[in-house]
Amino acid sequence: MKPSIPKGTRDFSPSEMVKRNYIFDTIRNLYQRYGYQQIETPSMELTETLLGKYGEEGDRLIFKILPRGEKLIKIGSELISNKDLTREFSNFVSGKTDEALRYDLTVPFARYIVQHQNEITFPFKRFQVQPVWRADRPQKGRYREFYQCDADVIGSDSLLNEVELIQIIGDVFSQLNVKVSIKLNNRKILSGIAEVIGEKDKIIDITVAIDKLDKIGLEKVNEELKSKGLTDKAIAQLQPIINLSGTNSEKLADLKVILSDSEVGLKGIIEIEEIISVITDCGLSTADCRLELDLTLARGLNYYTGAIIEVKVSDPRSSFTSSICGGGRYDDLTGIFGLPGVSGVGISFGADRIYDVLEEMNSFPDLSGATTKIMFVNFGKDEAAFCLKLLKRLRDDGINAELFPDAAKMKKQMGYADDKKIPFVALIGSEEMKTGDITVKNMQNGEQSKVTMDELLHMLK
Amino acid sequence: MKPSIPKGTRDFSPSEMVKRNYIFDTIRNLYQRYGYQQIETPSMELTETLLGKYGEEGDRLIFKILPRGEKLIKIGSELISNKDLTREFSNFVSGKTDEALRYDLTVPFARYIVQHQNEITFPFKRFQVQPVWRADRPQKGRYREFYQCDADVIGSDSLLNEVELIQIIGDVFSQLNVKVSIKLNNRKILSGIAEVIGEKDKIIDITVAIDKLDKIGLEKVNEELKSKGLTDKAIAQLQPIINLSGTNSEKLADLKVILSDSEVGLKGIIEIEEIISVITDCGLSTADCRLELDLTLARGLNYYTGAIIEVKVSDPRSSFTSSICGGGRYDDLTGIFGLPGVSGVGISFGADRIYDVLEEMNSFPDLSGATTKIMFVNFGKDEAAFCLKLLKRLRDDGINAELFPDAAKMKKQMGYADDKKIPFVALIGSEEMKTGDITVKNMQNGEQSKVTMDELLHMLK
Repeated sequence: MKPSIPKGTRDFSPSEMVKRNYIFDTIRNLYQRYGYQQIETPSMELTETLLGKYGEEGDRLIFKILPRGEKLIKIGSELISNKDLTREFSNFVSGKTDEALRYDLTVPFARYIVQHQNEITFPFKRFQVQPVWRADRPQKGRYREFYQCDADVIGSDSLLNEVELIQIIGDVFSQLNVKVSIKLNNRKILSGIAEVIGEKDKIIDITVAIDKLDKIGLEKVNEELKSKGLTDKAIAQLQPIINLSGTNSEKLADLKVILSDSEVGLKGIIEIEEIISVITDCGLSTADCRLELDLTLARGLNYYTGAIIEVKVSDPRSSFTSSICGGGRYDDLTGIFGLPGVSGVGISFGADRIYDVLEEMNSFPDLSGATTKIMFVNFGKDEAAFCLKLLKRLRDDGINAELFPDAAKMKKQMGYADDKKIPFVALIGSEEMKTGDITVKNMQNGEQSKVTMDELLHMLK
Repeated sequence: MKPSIPKGTRDFSPSEMVKRNYIFDTIRNLYQRYGYQQIETPSMELTETLLGKYGEEGDRLIFKILPRGEKLIKIGSELISNKDLTREFSNFVSGKTDEALRYDLTVPFARYIVQHQNEITFPFKRFQVQPVWRADRPQKGRYREFYQCDADVIGSDSLLNEVELIQIIGDVFSQLNVKVSIKLNNRKILSGIAEVIGEKDKIIDITVAIDKLDKIGLEKVNEELKSKGLTDKAIAQLQPIINLSGTNSEKLADLKVILSDSEVGLKGIIEIEEIISVITDCGLSTADCRLELDLTLARGLNYYTGAIIEVKVSDPRSSFTSSICGGGRYDDLTGIFGLPGVSGVGISFGADRIYDVLEEMNSFPDLSGATTKIMFVNFGKDEAAFCLKLLKRLRDDGINAELFPDAAKMKKQMGYADDKKIPFVALIGSEEMKTGDITVKNMQNGEQSKVTMDELLHMLK
C-alpha cells in the first residue's frame, strides 16, 4: 500500500519550495520595506474564538480537534445517559471541542489585538504569513491547507494607509513581473447608490447582485435585483451607474452628479479621489499596473466599510481571471472580542494562485543556484579530505557548496548535480591536489577550465 | 471576557519574531550552505501514517482531527446501535479519525520518501523547518505547538555525512555565539559493550540505564542494572567502561582493548575514529565547540544504528543543561512504509530552547533596524505627499522606511518610532521642502543633522 496524504493537502518538493519561497520572500520583503512587522499566532485557536465568525457554512468548514482523555470519556458517558443527544451527536461533539485550526488570519489577528492591546503601540502595522485550514471540497486550485499573506494597519484612519497598501501591491507584482489591474471601490459609494435609488435597506442584495456582473451578465443581474424586490424604477436608475465607463476621472465626475444627494456617497467619492490622486502623484511602480475604479466590486460587503481593493491578472500571457489579492477597510474588526471602534485596513495575497499564474506564464526567474552553487566530485578518501578544506573556504565566504558523499561512479555523481540543477562541478584528482588548481565544469555549456581558488571564488560570487 | 489561546500555544510578537527569524535564518542558511534542500509536508497526515510510530504514549499525544459531516453522523449511529462501543468510546472515536497533526518531522519525511521515491535523486539531502504538535502537559519550555528544524541525508552510507552534519552544528552555534559541547557515540559501540559483558540481549536495558548517569548518578544506575537482571559480574565489567576518561583518543584506545573481542564494537570504534579524524583535519568552526566521545549517550536507541549525536550548552553564561540539538544514523527509516534498507543520518535543532539560551545569555545581536530603518514624521498633507516621493527612492534602494500615517502630535509620532526601535527619524517641514534638505534625528544619541538625499541614502546603507 502506497503511503499518501489527506485529501486537499500537498507535499512541496525542493524545486517547488524554491519557487514558493521566491514568492513569499518577495511579499515579506516588501511588507517590511513599508514598515510592517511580522507576528505569528498558533495554528490552533480556541473553538469559541472561531465559531460564528464565518457564517454557518464557515463553521462547518472549520477543522476541529478531537477532545482527548477524560474530556472524551465524559462526552461518551453524557451520550449514554442522554439518549436525545445521540440524534444531535454531530453538533454535540463539535460543540464540545476545545481547539480548532484557524480558518483565516484575520480573526486570530483581531483576537491578538484585543488580547495584547496593552503591549501594542498603535497604529499597528503587522504582517503575517502562515497556513490556514478549511474543510472545503478540494478542487483545482482549492486546497484544505494553504498559506495566506496578510498585512493590516490597525488604529489609523488616514487614507495614506490605503495608498501604501496599493503601492505594496504595485511593487509586489512589478517584482514578480506580472501585469495586473488593481480594482478599487468604496463601500460608502455603494451605500450612496442604494440611497439615491431609494433602496437603502437593500444594499446587500444590490451589491451581491452587481458583484456578479462579470460572471452572469447584466440581464441576469437585473433579474436577480427584481427577484429581491427592487422596484422597476430603482433597477432602471441603477443601469447608468452599472454601465459607467471611461477613465477614473470621467467615472468619478459622472458619479458626483448621480450621488449629489447622498452625503455618504459623496464622502466615498472624496476618499477614492484622494487615494488615486496621491498614488498618481508619487507614482505606482510600473505602467504595467493599472488602478481602476470598479463600482461592481463588493467582496464580503458586510465586512468592509471604506475602500475595497481587488487585484486581477491583466497579463496577456495568463488565462487566470480570478482574484490574486484583495482587501479593504473595516471599522470594527475587534468589536467581536470586546474592543469596539478600532479601524483597520488590510490586504491579503493569494500565494497559491500567484504560483499558478507564474507557472502558467513560465515567468519564474532562473532560481538554479538558489540552492547549491557548486558540487565537488568525490574521487576517494584522500581527495575528499582535500576537498573538504576548499569547501570550508567557500562556505565561509557564503557560497552554498557540497561534496558528493560517496566515491560513486562519475555518471552517478554528474547525474546528481544535473538533477539538482547545480551550475558548477569541481573535479579534484591527484593532479589537482599537486598543483592546487581546480578543474571546474560549467554544467550549462559543458565547458571545463582550470582555475585557482581565488578565481573560483570570484566565479561563484 | 478576555480572549485567549489554547493551553501550551503561543502568540509571537514582532520583537519575538525578529529574534526567532534570526535563529531560523541562521539554521536554514547553513543547511543550504551545505547543499540541503527544503521540503514541506502538510500539517495533517493520515491518522494511520502516524499511529503506532511513537509508542503508546506517543499515540495518546497526537492531536486528531474531529471527523466531519456524514462520517461523524455515522459514528453516532454506530454508537447507538452498539451499546458495547460506548464503553470504548474514546478509542473508538479516535480510531475513526482520518487526519491528525504531525507529531514530528521524521515520520512525515519517511512517508514523503516512500511516496515520492521515483521523483527523488539519491542521496537526498533535505531540510525541513515546520511546526509539530503534541498534546503534552504544557510546562516551562514545553509547548503543544513548536518548530522543529531537521536536516537528513537519505541513501548514502558515507561517514562524510556525519562529518558534515557535525560541521553544520559547529557553524550554527559559532554564528549564534554559543559555546557548546557536541557529544558523540555509536550504537555499534553500545552493542559491543553489551556483547563483551555477556549481556547481548539486555542492550536496551543497559543503555537506558547508563543514559541516566548524568541525572541519577552511578550508584542508582548500577541499582537499575541489577533490577533488570544483569549479573554482578557484568555490572562489575561495565564499571571501567562507564568511567572511561581522558581525551577522545585515550578513551578510544582503552575501548579498543575492552572491545577487542567484539566485531561490531570495533566497527563502531573505527567509525567514530574516522569521523573525529576528518573533522579534526578540516577544522570545526571555532575552539568554542568541543567534540566529545560520550559512551553514556543513547537517545532513543531503538532508532539509531550508527552515530549518535547530542549537543549541550557548555557556555558559562548559561544555566541550561538540556539538549539543544540531536541526531544520528538510522538504517531503516522507511521500512515502516514498505521501502526497507534505506540508510539515513540526520540532526534536529531545538529552536525554542536555543531561543531561551540566547535570551538568558542576553546574546541576541542588535536586531533593531532589522525592520524599519527610518520613519518620516507626518506634518500634514503637503509634507506627507512630499515625503512619499523620498520614501519611494529609499524603498527602491532596498531600505525599509515608513511615513507616520496621521499628522498626529509630535510626541505620539516620536513615541511610535521609539517603541518600534526605529534608528532614524526624518523631519521634513516647509523649510526642508524649500531647500530639499532632510533633517535627520539619530534616535540612539538624539543628534540631529541636515543632510541631502544622497547623504541620507549613504547613512542608511
